[in-house]
Amino acid sequence: MPKVNLSEKFSQIPELWSPRIAAELNGQYLKLARLKGEFIWHQHQAEDELFLVVQGELKIQFRKSEEVLRAGEFLVVPRGVEHRPVAEEEVHVILLEPTSTVNTGEIRDERTRLDLKWI
Amino acid sequence: MPKVNLSEKFSQIPELWSPRIAAELNGQYLKLARLKGEFIWHQHQAEDELFLVVQGELKIQFRKSEEVLRAGEFLVVPRGVEHRPVAEEEVHVILLEPTSTVNTGEIRDERTRLDLKWI
Repeated sequence: MPKVNLSEKFSQIPELWSPRIAAELNGQYLKLARLKGEFIWHQHQAEDELFLVVQGELKIQFRKSEEVLRAGEFLVVPRGVEHRPVAEEEVHVILLEPTSTVNTGEIRDERTRLDLKWI
Repeated sequence: MPKVNLSEKFSQIPELWSPRIAAELNGQYLKLARLKGEFIWHQHQAEDELFLVVQGELKIQFRKSEEVLRAGEFLVVPRGVEHRPVAEEEVHVILLEPTSTVNTGEIRDERTRLDLKWI
């Protein structure tokens, strides 16, 4: 049971928009991601998704509202709710969701990551 | 889906060793706790437990080893593994575990918290 240092792990993530698995527990993955720019609108049919910002600023857009998360702030996107993450500058985010969750939800495109690696 | 600011929430927790629920997702609770001193040895038979330190320093003792977590570090205690959290000074910790998890694991004593409140 070795501990994990978040900033060490974030510094090892080579790509933007490519979450890496940092822990697995109770059927959930704790993932780390470096984000910058606009993602796509998507939803997760049967999975709630937590975003916790570690560094930087992340906007989560919903169809009729938005929230801006800064370091030390989190938000749960309930299953079935369309959302789009947007980051003007690079942001480091912890994601928490079931091991079955796909980053682009119901969409499959060039940003879909199905073969998640551990970090 | 309002965002949650961790330091605001920690400042509202009135007691040590009394985790509060800050989010529920996919059958899991994200809990916040202020800890200081020594807890009891215990284990969770069927539940993995994540400790993520937000502020301060938390020692997690195992029967044959220990880890010291500082801000930005986490550790997963796998189900069935005896452990004891110890904090010399006050520490703010995020816990992540199934909604069924009891803080003292298989033990019931005056430190057991069965009626968890939201914060």
